[in-house]
Amino acid sequence: MSERYVVIMAGGSGTRFWPASRKKQPKQFLSIGADRSLLRQTAERVVEMVGWDHLLVVTAEVHARHAQLELAELPEENLLIEPEGRNTAPCIAWATAVIHRRAADAVVAVLPADHFIADPAAFRAHLETALAEARPAEGAPRIVLLGLVPTRPETGYGYIQAGEPIEAHEVRQVARFVEKPDRETAERYLAEGGYLWNSGMFIFHVDAMRTALAEHLPELATKVDELVESPRKLKALYPELPSVSIDYGVMEKAAGVVVLPSNFPWSDVGSWDAAHEIQRKDAAGNVALGDALLIDAKNVLVDARAGRLVAVVGVEELVVVDTVDALLVIPRGRAQAVKAVVDHLRDQERDELI
Amino acid sequence: MSERYVVIMAGGSGTRFWPASRKKQPKQFLSIGADRSLLRQTAERVVEMVGWDHLLVVTAEVHARHAQLELAELPEENLLIEPEGRNTAPCIAWATAVIHRRAADAVVAVLPADHFIADPAAFRAHLETALAEARPAEGAPRIVLLGLVPTRPETGYGYIQAGEPIEAHEVRQVARFVEKPDRETAERYLAEGGYLWNSGMFIFHVDAMRTALAEHLPELATKVDELVESPRKLKALYPELPSVSIDYGVMEKAAGVVVLPSNFPWSDVGSWDAAHEIQRKDAAGNVALGDALLIDAKNVLVDARAGRLVAVVGVEELVVVDTVDALLVIPRGRAQAVKAVVDHLRDQERDELI
Repeated sequence: MSERYVVIMAGGSGTRFWPASRKKQPKQFLSIGADRSLLRQTAERVVEMVGWDHLLVVTAEVHARHAQLELAELPEENLLIEPEGRNTAPCIAWATAVIHRRAADAVVAVLPADHFIADPAAFRAHLETALAEARPAEGAPRIVLLGLVPTRPETGYGYIQAGEPIEAHEVRQVARFVEKPDRETAERYLAEGGYLWNSGMFIFHVDAMRTALAEHLPELATKVDELVESPRKLKALYPELPSVSIDYGVMEKAAGVVVLPSNFPWSDVGSWDAAHEIQRKDAAGNVALGDALLIDAKNVLVDARAGRLVAVVGVEELVVVDTVDALLVIPRGRAQAVKAVVDHLRDQERDELI
Repeated sequence: MSERYVVIMAGGSGTRFWPASRKKQPKQFLSIGADRSLLRQTAERVVEMVGWDHLLVVTAEVHARHAQLELAELPEENLLIEPEGRNTAPCIAWATAVIHRRAADAVVAVLPADHFIADPAAFRAHLETALAEARPAEGAPRIVLLGLVPTRPETGYGYIQAGEPIEAHEVRQVARFVEKPDRETAERYLAEGGYLWNSGMFIFHVDAMRTALAEHLPELATKVDELVESPRKLKALYPELPSVSIDYGVMEKAAGVVVLPSNFPWSDVGSWDAAHEIQRKDAAGNVALGDALLIDAKNVLVDARAGRLVAVVGVEELVVVDTVDALLVIPRGRAQAVKAVVDHLRDQERDELI
C-alpha cells in the first residue's frame, strides 16, 4: 500500500474575522467551532489516519512560530516555511516534491487549515475513499477533488460540475469548474443537481500531481525539484516561483482530474455570519463565547473571550466581537462589511490594529 | 442684599449608566454632554455667580475624595460629607443650618449634581430671578421651585401644577405636586398647560426653609442645629436623622412655596437614551465619543473612551458603551433594561462589576 501523507496549507491571511483575526493572527489560528484553533482542529482530524510524521504543514515565515506552538507534536522537518506567499500551486508543488523524495509512491491529501468540519469521522470516511481512488488498483494514478453536495444556493463558493460517473468507482469526471455564481445561478445549480461545492481539498498520488505539474507548470515542476535537492536555496528560489493557484494552474487543465461527491458537514468559515452558522446555539439562536451576558437576545454571536464582560440586551441578529484593543459590532448578514473597517484603518495608517 | 449660596447635592448613586457608572463612580462623576463631569459642569455653571467660597457640596463618604479631585477649588469646609445617605431632607436641612450659621440672611439655591443644562446663561438668568423671588422686597421670604415648561409628554418626570399668578411677580402659587404620569396623562398636561416639570432645583431664603422645617420636620430642624453646634457629633447624629425626601417632607406641605415657570433646555439625564438626546450629533444622528469608528450607522451612541477602538458598522438605534472591564450593547429606547444587567450581576455576586 502507498504511504499516506497529509499537507495542511496554513499560509493564508485575511481580514474577514477582524478584530479577532489580524495580520499576525489569521483565521487558521482562531478557535472557531471548538476550543482549539482551526489549524489544530484540522491536524487532529487527520492525525489518527497518518500520524504526525506523515503530516506536513506549509505556512508563512511570520506565522511559523505560532504554528509550532499550536502543533507541538509536529516534527520540525514537517513544517515547510514559505519565504513569501506565492499562491497555492508553488506551495503544493513544493510539498509534493518533499513527499516524493521521502516516499516515491505516496498518496497525498491537501487540506486548507481554516475550514470547519463538524463530523470528523464522516470526513475521514470520505478521505479514505479519496485516498484509495487516487491510486486505483487498475489504471493511472489520479487527482481527486472533494466536492460537497450543496445544501443551499450558496453564492460564496466556487462549484464543480460533475461529469460522467466512472464505472465501479465513487468518483466522477469533472465537466467544468465554475466561479462563485449569483443567487439565481446558485439556485439553478441546486435544482438541477450535479453541481458540487469546490471545497479546496484534494487528494492525489504524487505521480499524478508531478505529471500534471510537468505538463502545465513545467518551470515550477523543475524549480521545486531543485529546491528539494538544495534546501539552502529556499530563500533565493522560492520568490521566483510563478504565483498561480492550483485550480487555475493545474486542476482546470489537467486530464484525469476527478471529483468525489461528498456530504459531510463542511464550512470554509468565510465570515462572522458563517461562524455563527456552524457553532452550537442556545434555544434563542445565540452563540455566546467567554464572559458574555445575554438578556432578551436572539440570533446573536457574542465573542467575549478577551477577559471583559460583554452584556448584550434586547438585540437580534447582531455580531459582537471583543478583543483586547478593538471591538466590532455588526449585524448578521452584513459581515462582509468588516472589510470596510479594515480599509478605513489602513487609510488611517493604524497598522497596529490590522 | 442677602448673601447668595449654592448647595450641590452630589450624594446620589445609581445603576442606570452602567457600565460607565458604578457604585464608586455614580452618574455625577461621568462626563456627559461635555468633557467634564456633570458635577464639575454644575459647579462651573454657578460659580461665576457666587464664587467657590459660597458653593457647598454635599456628598457621601465613599465619593468625597472623588468630589475633591473634581472640584479642586472648593474650600475644604464647603464639602459636607454625609456619614450615610438619609434622603434629601436631612442633606438640605444640614446645608441650610451650616449656611445660616455663616450668613443668617442668606438665600440658597439647591441643585442636583447630575443634571445637564445646555444653555448655562439662560439657566443663570432664571436663577437670578428665583434668588430675587426667594427674598422679595415686600412680604415674607419664600421657597421657589424651578418648574420647566414641558416640551414633550414626558413620563419620566414628576410635575408641578402651577396655581394662581402672584401679582407683579414672575412666580406662581403651587396648586399641587403630581407623580410621574402615564403617557395619556402627560399628553393631557401638555395640551392643557399649567403643568411644569419638577426639576428638583429650588431656591429659598434660609428663614423660609428653617421655618418650614421647624413646622413639618421639627426633629430634623433641632438635630441639624445641634450638628452645626457640635460638628464632632456628625457620625453619631447623622444616621439618626429621619430619612425623608424634601418634596414629601417639606415642599408638598409648606405654605408659601411658589414655582418659577422656566424654559431653559434641561435634562435630568435619566438613561443612556437621554444621554444620546442631549449630545451633539452628526448628520446621521450619531454620538461618537472617544475612539469610535462608525460606518453606515444611524442614531447610535458609541462611548469608546476606554482606550479601545470600537467599530460599529451597519446598525441603527443602538447604544454601545465600552469600559475597561465591561461592555454594554443595548438598543435605544430599551435603556431602562440596563437594570436587568445589574440585577443579574448582583445575583451572580460579581460586585466588582457593579
